[in-house]
Amino acid sequence: MKKVTVYITLKQGVLDPQGKAIQTSLHSLGYEEVQEARVGKFIELQIDDKEDLDARINAMCDQLLANPVIEDFRFDVEEAVQS
Amino acid sequence: MKKVTVYITLKQGVLDPQGKAIQTSLHSLGYEEVQEARVGKFIELQIDDKEDLDARINAMCDQLLANPVIEDFRFDVEEAVQS
Repeated sequence: MKKVTVYITLKQGVLDPQGKAIQTSLHSLGYEEVQEARVGKFIELQIDDKEDLDARINAMCDQLLANPVIEDFRFDVEEAVQS
Repeated sequence: MKKVTVYITLKQGVLDPQGKAIQTSLHSLGYEEVQEARVGKFIELQIDDKEDLDARINAMCDQLLANPVIEDFRFDVEEAVQS
């Protein structure tokens, strides 16, 4: 079993209104030191061991998890810790 | 200037319908090896150097970035790379 974490961010240059709203709100709360905020998401997957893991994760991202037009993704694979 | 990345996840035990939907969709695309999917978000902040950085980031999370009732957060601080 592997634990895969996929990080999805907006591509450089794509406007991030949610991040802009966070920055504005932080300023109005008194955190003037915040110069920029950008929001991304991550997805933690528990995946059974299988061949071609990296290729399959790339395919999952292209088909479903990320929008390749406006988003970039990267992922880490580690051994899952059984709890 | 520091680059701070805040990772926000649902607390253990809180239902994650978005993650469940992702898992179901991945199954129907043929990725039967995915046993669990959970979704979180991360926020990248560019912050001017200031005293008590960690305490101020904790306060930002409690006041705005995370919902402490259902979400956990953690953050990393690194030196910002000027581009």
